[in-house]
Amino acid sequence: MVDKALGGAGLRGQVAGETALCTVGKSGSGLTYRGYDISELADKVQFEEVAYLLSRGELPNQGQLVEYKAKLKSLRGLPQALKSVLETIPKDAHPMDVMRTGCSMLGNLETETDFANADDAIDRMVAIFPSIICYWYRYTHDGVRIDVETDDDTVGAHFLHLLHDKAPSQLFADVMNVSLILYAEHEFNASTFTARVCASTLSDIHSCVTGAIGSLRGPLHGGANEAAMDMIEGFKDAEHAEQELMSMLARKDKIMGFGHAIYRESDPRNVIIKKYSERLAKEVGDDVLYPVSVRCEEVMWREKKLFCNADFFHASAYHFMGIPTKLFTPIFVMSRVTGWTAHVKEQRANNRIIRPSAEYTGPDSRPVPAMSER
Amino acid sequence: MVDKALGGAGLRGQVAGETALCTVGKSGSGLTYRGYDISELADKVQFEEVAYLLSRGELPNQGQLVEYKAKLKSLRGLPQALKSVLETIPKDAHPMDVMRTGCSMLGNLETETDFANADDAIDRMVAIFPSIICYWYRYTHDGVRIDVETDDDTVGAHFLHLLHDKAPSQLFADVMNVSLILYAEHEFNASTFTARVCASTLSDIHSCVTGAIGSLRGPLHGGANEAAMDMIEGFKDAEHAEQELMSMLARKDKIMGFGHAIYRESDPRNVIIKKYSERLAKEVGDDVLYPVSVRCEEVMWREKKLFCNADFFHASAYHFMGIPTKLFTPIFVMSRVTGWTAHVKEQRANNRIIRPSAEYTGPDSRPVPAMSER
Repeated sequence: MVDKALGGAGLRGQVAGETALCTVGKSGSGLTYRGYDISELADKVQFEEVAYLLSRGELPNQGQLVEYKAKLKSLRGLPQALKSVLETIPKDAHPMDVMRTGCSMLGNLETETDFANADDAIDRMVAIFPSIICYWYRYTHDGVRIDVETDDDTVGAHFLHLLHDKAPSQLFADVMNVSLILYAEHEFNASTFTARVCASTLSDIHSCVTGAIGSLRGPLHGGANEAAMDMIEGFKDAEHAEQELMSMLARKDKIMGFGHAIYRESDPRNVIIKKYSERLAKEVGDDVLYPVSVRCEEVMWREKKLFCNADFFHASAYHFMGIPTKLFTPIFVMSRVTGWTAHVKEQRANNRIIRPSAEYTGPDSRPVPAMSER
Repeated sequence: MVDKALGGAGLRGQVAGETALCTVGKSGSGLTYRGYDISELADKVQFEEVAYLLSRGELPNQGQLVEYKAKLKSLRGLPQALKSVLETIPKDAHPMDVMRTGCSMLGNLETETDFANADDAIDRMVAIFPSIICYWYRYTHDGVRIDVETDDDTVGAHFLHLLHDKAPSQLFADVMNVSLILYAEHEFNASTFTARVCASTLSDIHSCVTGAIGSLRGPLHGGANEAAMDMIEGFKDAEHAEQELMSMLARKDKIMGFGHAIYRESDPRNVIIKKYSERLAKEVGDDVLYPVSVRCEEVMWREKKLFCNADFFHASAYHFMGIPTKLFTPIFVMSRVTGWTAHVKEQRANNRIIRPSAEYTGPDSRPVPAMSER
């Protein structure tokens, strides 16, 4: 799989370290978190159990889960200085820049000074990230300073409550729960690897996560569900979607939400979120976006043998819940922060600074020319 | 050089991409930027010429240099929103957290939306970083809101002027110039690699630099000159330094500022900054810190065959210029931003997303246990 023209660029297939957190595309099960299949997790547990599993190593028992959720609930509040910073960020800012700056500012206010307390810093980020993005969004878009300390039972419900100013329906809360589970962890993807490179210098955990957010912001990484949304929104119905898609394929346009760098035949997360997108479509009475999405899936498979990845049906699912498209990638952050930080802990526990080599392609040694000779 | 116990951890010796920017430790010349030897650059050019060389590919001629420096001068001002954020960051914050947050906030206010304009964003960061750190420092430590738009000729003089509220002497300006040249670029070190991983997702340049700052913050990367300062400050004279150092070696303490991951026999930057540290010692009438530093160098070589790296004599040099120790690593940022951003441009020009593999060491596939079974 290594592209010869680029040598080792991309490090595809090169082992950059060990992990006990995740397998991606291993024969059979597709995606596992600490040995648990993603389908079974999505079916049976809460996102908070997954967050606990990733940071602490095992699924919580009942007492641990109650305690952990109570802790998260107590950590939703925003320090005044962080509110001020969020209010200073303009309405037209990129929401991922808001997340990145909010996380970085948190690091100024609650600096991680002792790695032994990493779990406290991690729990705080898991709890506060929905507050950060919603406080900024509601302030700049609706002109209100919201109270972020709600009593919602879960991270997903907390987010929807802040965004819509009311507690979500059970179905919406369930979809958020599943979505956060699906995005929580994915081995050495670019943002996670960013976090690990940063961790390898023994930097603090807010630096690691701030860096990871910056990498997830890239259109080749996070943001595919936003791009998918932008595309399917433009289709009037399934027939129109097929026509347009065929033209895009003929023009060799890049079509987001399909295929994957690691998975070869399917993305195990797709079947799960697709089922929820269908349920949501029924719930909200949609007869366009879901059929359009299904037709896109059919056409891409028929024409290119490309399957939907986790992002594609997330677009319609989020949209049905009334989530603005530009907040899709920040949700990814709320979820993936659990994976990133588990990787940071893992990197620290068996660390060696990550410092690869480069192939030099520049000029040979040369003398510095006098100014008059340039 | 690969540590077997850690497998590919650290990627030492593994090629992660191409660069035309720099060679480190190649036979003979030690360190080159686009083919120019670091010693010759430090002798003959200004930091602004190096910054131009890295971002534009060649050294500027006279007209280009005049224009470039005028541009940098015009870009020193802080937007009001950025000032507000800096005023919100507490006095006891880690200065690297301030740099990281300042850079991230800048990305909200002046978002890079078109890679074709990358040079404008880069020039802005080179020009504004001294303003960011000094505005925060002087506001929180001296209680003043400084005017950051001075008329100083160079980045180094601008920094010292803001810090000390007066234009620096020629010698001080010269030392800053050399120091910024020495730290500008160093191939695929951890912070630069962070910037490239981020760039490989096609994220914006402020995300790349924000992430790089977070990695440079780690004590295994930036910060060695701060640690060296903390150590030499504790020595009363050369004799005392030798005694203490011998005890530290006997205890196998980690001693910062010596040795290097890539260089084997010497760091070509040391002889340059050492010479300036000596000149500064004479200028300020020091008869402790410089002799202490020289003795440390002798003892470490005699006992361990470890040489001073770029960081060791930087400690005394910066100290002689009245720079607070906690601002040493932010100076590194002011310099290295030129290397980081040149790597971002290079990564973008021939991009493949950086996504290595991991060796899985976790549990085998297992069923999710019922809550009552945990």
